Amino acid sequence: MGKIGIVYYSRGGNTEKMAHAVYEGAKSEAGVEVELKKAEETSLDELTRWDGIIVGSPTYYGLPAAPVKELFDRSVKRHGMLEGKVGGAFSSSANVGGGNETTIMGIIQMMLIHGMIVKGSSKGDHYGPVSLGEPDERVKKQCKNLGATIAKMVKKMPIC
Amino acid sequence: MGKIGIVYYSRGGNTEKMAHAVYEGAKSEAGVEVELKKAEETSLDELTRWDGIIVGSPTYYGLPAAPVKELFDRSVKRHGMLEGKVGGAFSSSANVGGGNETTIMGIIQMMLIHGMIVKGSSKGDHYGPVSLGEPDERVKKQCKNLGATIAKMVKKMPIC
Amino acid sequence: MGKIGIVYYSRGGNTEKMAHAVYEGAKSEAGVEVELKKAEETSLDELTRWDGIIVGSPTYYGLPAAPVKELFDRSVKRHGMLEGKVGGAFSSSANVGGGNETTIMGIIQMMLIHGMIVKGSSKGDHYGPVSLGEPDERVKKQCKNLGATIAKMVKKMPIC
Amino acid sequence: MGKIGIVYYSRGGNTEKMAHAVYEGAKSEAGVEVELKKAEETSLDELTRWDGIIVGSPTYYGLPAAPVKELFDRSVKRHGMLEGKVGGAFSSSANVGGGNETTIMGIIQMMLIHGMIVKGSSKGDHYGPVSLGEPDERVKKQCKNLGATIAKMVKKMPIC
Repeated sequence: MGKIGIVYYSRGGNTEKMAHAVYEGAKSEAGVEVELKKAEETSLDELTRWDGIIVGSPTYYGLPAAPVKELFDRSVKRHGMLEGKVGGAFSSSANVGGGNETTIMGIIQMMLIHGMIVKGSSKGDHYGPVSLGEPDERVKKQCKNLGATIAKMVKKMPIC
Repeated sequence: MGKIGIVYYSRGGNTEKMAHAVYEGAKSEAGVEVELKKAEETSLDELTRWDGIIVGSPTYYGLPAAPVKELFDRSVKRHGMLEGKVGGAFSSSANVGGGNETTIMGIIQMMLIHGMIVKGSSKGDHYGPVSLGEPDERVKKQCKNLGATIAKMVKKMPIC
Repeated sequence: MGKIGIVYYSRGGNTEKMAHAVYEGAKSEAGVEVELKKAEETSLDELTRWDGIIVGSPTYYGLPAAPVKELFDRSVKRHGMLEGKVGGAFSSSANVGGGNETTIMGIIQMMLIHGMIVKGSSKGDHYGPVSLGEPDERVKKQCKNLGATIAKMVKKMPIC
Repeated sequence: MGKIGIVYYSRGGNTEKMAHAVYEGAKSEAGVEVELKKAEETSLDELTRWDGIIVGSPTYYGLPAAPVKELFDRSVKRHGMLEGKVGGAFSSSANVGGGNETTIMGIIQMMLIHGMIVKGSSKGDHYGPVSLGEPDERVKKQCKNLGATIAKMVKKMPIC
């Protein structure tokens, strides 16, 4: 049974709300287990156990928040063991043009360096869901779609 | 007297409207000459003659439009001659999370490779002005600010 | 039978040599058809027919060459039809720190906006193969691996 | 008298060696004070006091190391106060294509969001000095050039 971990950092609560919507979307697919974890409380064993990893962060200076980066820095001890896993990213931000895309691309870069597999979207937020302030219905739907997509991909593993 | 070129590509007209607002902002500073040119009609002599170069593009697949890229590809013949010039970038886009930040960062990367000097903004659109659809008053103000900022920087040249 | 298109632009010949190595790697997998095309000669019908698309470009000002960008700009007419396809990228460059990573990430961004699926590598060149000057044996091996990986992924389609 | 802070994080020592070369280059310019600080030991008062800030990080998963990100996350308390300051970035990395360019661009993005001014280079490492492993003479020279360039720019402040 495929396992998905949704890892997030949130201070104001917006990224957390997005994480819950991603969780809901992933849960809507049969045949996967889904866990929701704060970045600071995520262990390396969990990273290696999960088949899909979805990471959310607020937009802090156009890059993921330090606790998210810290998790990836720690993960170097398991470098190679995330190869071929499926990944996705999302971010909440104060405003348009405020660095949300580069934050998501930053998470995607970290995943690619781990050898992970990511998918964009031809509709809506292309790199991953972005919320400007509190997530509205449009954003929540994008988050659910992300969760469902990752779940479907996980069920196809191994993909290569 | 400092010279500024505002170079843009526009098909729908939104980037062109932004370019006009940037022009207005640059013109508001005394002691600089400002020219507005389409990317396809910009010559390498103009690029090397200008002290400040501001480039605008619609967001096409998260990168500047091909005619903007084509101008930079051509500019390799003057590589080294843009060193120390001042640059800025702006983009219009269909939607949030649609690649506008990465388009602006793409333009900034091309400028950095030419040895140019760029400045972000701690307020509003940090990397450069972004318009979602037709530029509204907020966007136009950001564009004017960009033009005025580049004009002020040009008057300080040589900066290094 | 899965179909893979390797699309490249090359003036000096280095990117073309990389493309040939990618081709060889893809061909080494049974059960896929592989085509090698210049970006300028690639039709939109080919893009939509292929299941996997691997794009190579020289590093020009830290972004893909204009003819590669032009192909993606044209592809907007088929927007949505590349959703779920598999993608990969590679680049040749004059020197380290010269913009090769951002060129590859630029191609990956365009693919994500099309809704495509990309995979990094935990070993070697993480975002995609990079050649500094003429491709040596190390680079050719990376290119072959990329071709083989994309072929394996294509055989798993639909991935979501 | 212009003040420059060189802030770095280093575990293996390579980024630290680069930082020392940057320091030497900055010191070679008359009329500036230069300080060398570890990211973990840098205070917000220092960030706001310095006119030029040069940041170095090892390449960890294609982005600056967590302690460097942590410093920028903390700096939000002084948001707006770094506007118009001069910035530069450098990185050490295990290998080509390993994420060093995206690490440097990540630092530059954070600086742009602070409203800082950055300059690329038309020669050598365009976005900022990159060392593959231990810095050799070529890298050290690039680092010295970066330090000297930032010092020259600081002497021109205010630039806008």
